[in-house]
Amino acid sequence: MTRERTPHQASVTDTVELLGLVAQLEDSAFDRHAADAANAPDAEGRLLHSRFAAQSVERRDRVLSRVTELGGDPVAAIAPYNTVLDDFDVRTQPSTWWERLLKGYVGAGVSDDFCRLAARNLDPVSRALVLDVLDDAAQAEMSVRSLENACAQDEVLTARLALWGRRVVGESLQIVQRLLVNHPGLARLMTHAEHQGPVAETDGQPALPVVEPATPAAPGKVLNELTAEHTRRMSRLKFTA
Amino acid sequence: MTRERTPHQASVTDTVELLGLVAQLEDSAFDRHAADAANAPDAEGRLLHSRFAAQSVERRDRVLSRVTELGGDPVAAIAPYNTVLDDFDVRTQPSTWWERLLKGYVGAGVSDDFCRLAARNLDPVSRALVLDVLDDAAQAEMSVRSLENACAQDEVLTARLALWGRRVVGESLQIVQRLLVNHPGLARLMTHAEHQGPVAETDGQPALPVVEPATPAAPGKVLNELTAEHTRRMSRLKFTA
Repeated sequence: MTRERTPHQASVTDTVELLGLVAQLEDSAFDRHAADAANAPDAEGRLLHSRFAAQSVERRDRVLSRVTELGGDPVAAIAPYNTVLDDFDVRTQPSTWWERLLKGYVGAGVSDDFCRLAARNLDPVSRALVLDVLDDAAQAEMSVRSLENACAQDEVLTARLALWGRRVVGESLQIVQRLLVNHPGLARLMTHAEHQGPVAETDGQPALPVVEPATPAAPGKVLNELTAEHTRRMSRLKFTA
Repeated sequence: MTRERTPHQASVTDTVELLGLVAQLEDSAFDRHAADAANAPDAEGRLLHSRFAAQSVERRDRVLSRVTELGGDPVAAIAPYNTVLDDFDVRTQPSTWWERLLKGYVGAGVSDDFCRLAARNLDPVSRALVLDVLDDAAQAEMSVRSLENACAQDEVLTARLALWGRRVVGESLQIVQRLLVNHPGLARLMTHAEHQGPVAETDGQPALPVVEPATPAAPGKVLNELTAEHTRRMSRLKFTA
């Protein structure tokens, strides 16, 4: 019997399945930031969002390099996710700059948390890369600051955006459910992750090996955890999630 | 009498006027490459063009850093050119991927040549930066290769694209004329540059001081030179410019 990996360290196939998703999310973030740059209300906003777009390309390419290192094909890894956000984007067309910003904050928050959870049992190099790539505190900080300023004196806007945030998170969680149904590798990674602590405790240390469950876990726990993280994010905005 | 700069080294004001244009052109290139990425016929093309988009952001920001070093304000430097390509874009809406690629090749070719010409009398640091930023041989090479492949077996496409190239260069040269009318600093830089050799001889060495002309030169010589460079570029594609 070979024991080449720690119990529950993800297989290379499953790892590449997650890396493909992370790369696609960064690729979609590039589109989103490019549109943000085009729609930014002032020149400073334009410069800032185009920089975020450039960062997303760099992050995507770092993830794709890891796919290559693992013997995978970058284009093949990203391809299954090409249309993953299409429905989401159709259902959450922002009608104002603030809706656009909040959509990014909420949507990226959920998808990043999902990937962080799924990344727990990757090999240490892949896991560190995913956590590093998804660590976009600067962008979240900027969104929070802008939205807070806009909402400070405007209760109507605050109420509207709170509603909008609920809509965006609802659609985001539907994507998560569809991902788990359509991508068995992601479901396996999540099943293992579910047997560990909450996402907020991720500290960059290798996860402890756990006993493999007999059946894949239902996504209920994942969704609860993602919802809790979302509520925490919205409370930074003093919205009711 | 002070002689703090070489005769005909551009003033800081004129330098910032050109750097603002270069930054805006890179900013527009970001938009163009982002749209190219969204329209690319395959995943490889999408990856490639989004990388070009990221490069444009990085180049724009290097130019804006130089503006700051020279005591200028980056946003103020770029602002006068915000709409410089709007008319051009309305008049040259590509209807196919190949028209899109050729538009980039021709349009960026003309605007880059214009900036290279105007950069001749900048201080050595600014000039080296402009020449480095505009040195996008890789992008031009990619465009030429793709267009050659597409045209190799297709005389109808070749004929159509040759026509399209003439339209794009005509509109590009109109932009150049408008720039020289509306931006006195650019006109001054060009007047000095006209008294030197052709653009192709630029070799990174400081330009020799020349006698200042009594009146600003007509843009005829500039346009001739830009047209000659365009013809050379089109001949790489075996089109008749």
